Amino acid sequence: MSRARLVAAAQGEAPFDRLLTGGTIADVATGELRAADIGILDGLIASLHPPGSRQDAAAIDDMTGLVLAPGFIDSHLHYESSLMAPADYASVVAPAGTTTGVWDPHELANVAGLAGVAWARDAARGVPFRTLIAAPSCVPSAPGLEVAGAEIGPAEMAEMLGWEGVCGIAEVMDMAGVLAASPRMAGIVAAGMAAGRNINGHARGLSGAGLQAYVAAGVTSDHEITSAEDALQKLRAGLTVELRGSHDTLLPEVVAAIMALPVFPVTLVLCTDDVFPDELVAKGGLRDTVARVIARGMPPMLAIRCATLHAALRLKRDDIGLLAPGRAADIVALSDLATVAVARCYVAGQPAATQAPRPPPGLRQSMHLAPLAADALALRPRGVPSGRVRLPVVAGARFTTWGEAEAEVCDGIAAPPPGHSLLASVHRHGRADAVPRVALISGWGEIAGAVATTIAHDSHNLLVFGRDPALMAGAANALIAAGGGMAVMEPDGRLTLLPLPIAGLLAETPAAETARAFADLRAAADRVIAWQPPYAVFRGLTGVSLACNPGPHLTDRGIADIARGGVTDPAEPLGWPLKAQRDNNCA
Amino acid sequence: MSRARLVAAAQGEAPFDRLLTGGTIADVATGELRAADIGILDGLIASLHPPGSRQDAAAIDDMTGLVLAPGFIDSHLHYESSLMAPADYASVVAPAGTTTGVWDPHELANVAGLAGVAWARDAARGVPFRTLIAAPSCVPSAPGLEVAGAEIGPAEMAEMLGWEGVCGIAEVMDMAGVLAASPRMAGIVAAGMAAGRNINGHARGLSGAGLQAYVAAGVTSDHEITSAEDALQKLRAGLTVELRGSHDTLLPEVVAAIMALPVFPVTLVLCTDDVFPDELVAKGGLRDTVARVIARGMPPMLAIRCATLHAALRLKRDDIGLLAPGRAADIVALSDLATVAVARCYVAGQPAATQAPRPPPGLRQSMHLAPLAADALALRPRGVPSGRVRLPVVAGARFTTWGEAEAEVCDGIAAPPPGHSLLASVHRHGRADAVPRVALISGWGEIAGAVATTIAHDSHNLLVFGRDPALMAGAANALIAAGGGMAVMEPDGRLTLLPLPIAGLLAETPAAETARAFADLRAAADRVIAWQPPYAVFRGLTGVSLACNPGPHLTDRGIADIARGGVTDPAEPLGWPLKAQRDNNCA
Repeated sequence: MSRARLVAAAQGEAPFDRLLTGGTIADVATGELRAADIGILDGLIASLHPPGSRQDAAAIDDMTGLVLAPGFIDSHLHYESSLMAPADYASVVAPAGTTTGVWDPHELANVAGLAGVAWARDAARGVPFRTLIAAPSCVPSAPGLEVAGAEIGPAEMAEMLGWEGVCGIAEVMDMAGVLAASPRMAGIVAAGMAAGRNINGHARGLSGAGLQAYVAAGVTSDHEITSAEDALQKLRAGLTVELRGSHDTLLPEVVAAIMALPVFPVTLVLCTDDVFPDELVAKGGLRDTVARVIARGMPPMLAIRCATLHAALRLKRDDIGLLAPGRAADIVALSDLATVAVARCYVAGQPAATQAPRPPPGLRQSMHLAPLAADALALRPRGVPSGRVRLPVVAGARFTTWGEAEAEVCDGIAAPPPGHSLLASVHRHGRADAVPRVALISGWGEIAGAVATTIAHDSHNLLVFGRDPALMAGAANALIAAGGGMAVMEPDGRLTLLPLPIAGLLAETPAAETARAFADLRAAADRVIAWQPPYAVFRGLTGVSLACNPGPHLTDRGIADIARGGVTDPAEPLGWPLKAQRDNNCA
Repeated sequence: MSRARLVAAAQGEAPFDRLLTGGTIADVATGELRAADIGILDGLIASLHPPGSRQDAAAIDDMTGLVLAPGFIDSHLHYESSLMAPADYASVVAPAGTTTGVWDPHELANVAGLAGVAWARDAARGVPFRTLIAAPSCVPSAPGLEVAGAEIGPAEMAEMLGWEGVCGIAEVMDMAGVLAASPRMAGIVAAGMAAGRNINGHARGLSGAGLQAYVAAGVTSDHEITSAEDALQKLRAGLTVELRGSHDTLLPEVVAAIMALPVFPVTLVLCTDDVFPDELVAKGGLRDTVARVIARGMPPMLAIRCATLHAALRLKRDDIGLLAPGRAADIVALSDLATVAVARCYVAGQPAATQAPRPPPGLRQSMHLAPLAADALALRPRGVPSGRVRLPVVAGARFTTWGEAEAEVCDGIAAPPPGHSLLASVHRHGRADAVPRVALISGWGEIAGAVATTIAHDSHNLLVFGRDPALMAGAANALIAAGGGMAVMEPDGRLTLLPLPIAGLLAETPAAETARAFADLRAAADRVIAWQPPYAVFRGLTGVSLACNPGPHLTDRGIADIARGGVTDPAEPLGWPLKAQRDNNCA
């Protein structure tokens, strides 16, 4: 679009659409707080000018007492973690000051492949919020150990990078593939370099030569910070550190280490990564991260600079991140700088929308499996009609280790021993058999009902957790009927269901309703499981299936472990069969 | 190229090409000075690792006692100002620490249009120095008032932006066109925005609403800083300030103002803009600017950060600006940080070349005009065979004003009155008549010979300065014979000639030889003209023809003035003819 109208308006030859008067500019370029009015036209800033010097505007908004900053830029997030489509997510965070988000639709891609990413792109279009799509790089995240809904290789990556609105390659999680220069990962990264796009990282736990190699491969950022020293090592390696709010306990030490550096790093940006829907509604996304970083000791101007200008530079964009002529009129008005108290927010010159249109069609009917019989969710040790058997155990939830346990078998079915439960993974994408893989798990506390979810990182097959196959089937079948979601079935059969009909990952309800439903689900989970905090069961459910991490993880193929390689049948008895040790009388 | 070899080398699975050991890293990301060795492979940095931890390399260079920084990035320069082709320029500045330059081949474009820019691109290719071409935006810079060698409009700009190696739009000098949203400038800027490229500015003297409008148009940088307050206004307007070394007297106040800001601006980079060849050889390009900025009070780490990481961010490049894996092994080794004493420099992992291959063919034969008779360079007032006549005068050199003077005419030729000289502009591009336009000028001091140049900003027609048409023709014809350049003819006929056969702008000689020849030319100019400093005559010659500035300027069409509009015939007598006042006897 020609800038002729904007140029004219800046010179007083045409009126503004909107004028923000009486505010104080938080100038993230110079660090100054200074008085200026802002004239807006065609969604862009036309000029910053002396207070009161212009009055010609279709609308004049009084900003007296407010500090105006560029809208916040969330450098890495997954809308899926908030169970919301772009418009719903934006309806929460835009009024709270965030105006741009770099979305990695990794979960949609794992379910629906390129169609999922295309849906993400289309769903973001037209929403008064700037969604930049980072193309998922690791689908599936553990090739050969799980069957996701799709596979993305170098050719698919190159295709996505050609789409409008795709800004780069999303977190490169297959660190082992990068360090081994596997054809898949080398090809995917090369596609990003050829397109001149950002290649975002996931360098969890990497240091020393491994970190250097990972960066040498072409990755230029990381959000998987585990300590202050880790943050410094990543900065020294030349990575842009995407400091995230989702790991609050790390913030004090990381902020202190950064503030102790001789110069404040320009390669520091902020992100949320994952926020549960009720937390998102309560705290408002990146705004909360900015506030907490400030509370931990970062001067407000620098924290806001990380969330604005630094992020724009990282994104190689001249159109956001500063309150300056020609840039988007994405403006957050703060009633208090230190606490990042947001009074109002403008996106492209319009007050941020609090209502969202319904998500677009597509990605429904993602449950490619028939209802499950309770019998199918029982653990049936191979070749053991009855007796005692030793079986493998996935011990722990988010961080898993191998274990073993002895179980009693009767009529071919093993009863989970005390302290153990059952976890079933069922392929739901129609790309492999949907025979449930049922394993013993431990370390989850006592469960009195069943929990089922179609959010099961990263391939998002159907995961069912419990001790009683009948309750497990009840929860699972509720999800199959609902087209995906999360469900808790209590021992009395009472069902709490959060339908996620979009790819089995996203709700169709407005944000507030989704947040309430999620809170209800937390409460129901709290009633059936003793583990604290209650919502940890959801984090655990995503961790116990995350086969790209080392250690045993249950996938739709069995117990996968990238450290061992291959998949273990969870129903295959271990070692010398113990069944002969007992008589054949079932208890 | 696949990064597999680099990834392997970083992990110790393959040797490096080169290893820099024992040095101290100036980490512009964190501001730390820290010990690390650097492994280099395939021209890239493979890893930074603990000192002594690796020894496997084809070559090991001992950096003990040296501080290693990323190679400097010159954010805006004209090789033409140094009269050097890319390889020659690089042979001077690369050993002195500069490894990347953003070249605006504005002068080549004014002479040869797109062919000039294509030559620039090709001449830079293969040189061990990273030249990024900024596509010239204002050719000619004063449309209708001069005839340059070519015209560049939106279509030509779009074409250039599609060329490999073209990084953006060069300084948008036609400020009036931008502020009036002229079709040419609006179209050119729109082409840059459509291509997502940097649009570099030239916002000389703009402030207030004019500055806001200029930035609103889409321009994102400025190097035409005139004061500390001007620098701050430009930063506040969201522009990246390209602080230049060519205006040394400004540096103290600008640096002081920047250091007084609450935060150090990331939108501050450094550039040289214009450096004469002998100064370039003596001081080494951007290295000298960095050193002077430090001497004026900027901490060395921040000054170097401006010249490296800030510039890379401005250029939207992840491959330069930091000493980090995967980035170019462009490394400067300093024996003293504060004085920026360069001990050695590597470009893409190789020691910087001090020898340059000869420039490529093309752009010779740019003098499209026949030798000039002395008679043609005389000032012949129209319709006045003899007597006294009042004529217009271009008063002053770099900053010109209108004047008038009375001259004696004999045999149709006006003798320049005392304190006045003659200036002739002759079209040399073959796109218009080559009839010399001869004007009276004042304010240049006494001249005893003649000076001629084919460097005459911005259309680079042939400019000849003197009092004696015979000497002027001697100097001019020497240039015509040489295919362009600069020449001084002394009263005894002694000629000092600096041939610039490439477009009449660039030398074919090695840098040192060009520098010596230019120094000789300065000395010769010093002998024939009293103006101090002697080299001011060359600046003056470029200023007196720079028709895009307000005030009278002599072009190949006559005396142009954008403030008045149109062209004035310098030989047209003013007011009531004075010729009747005198008899017809010539002195």
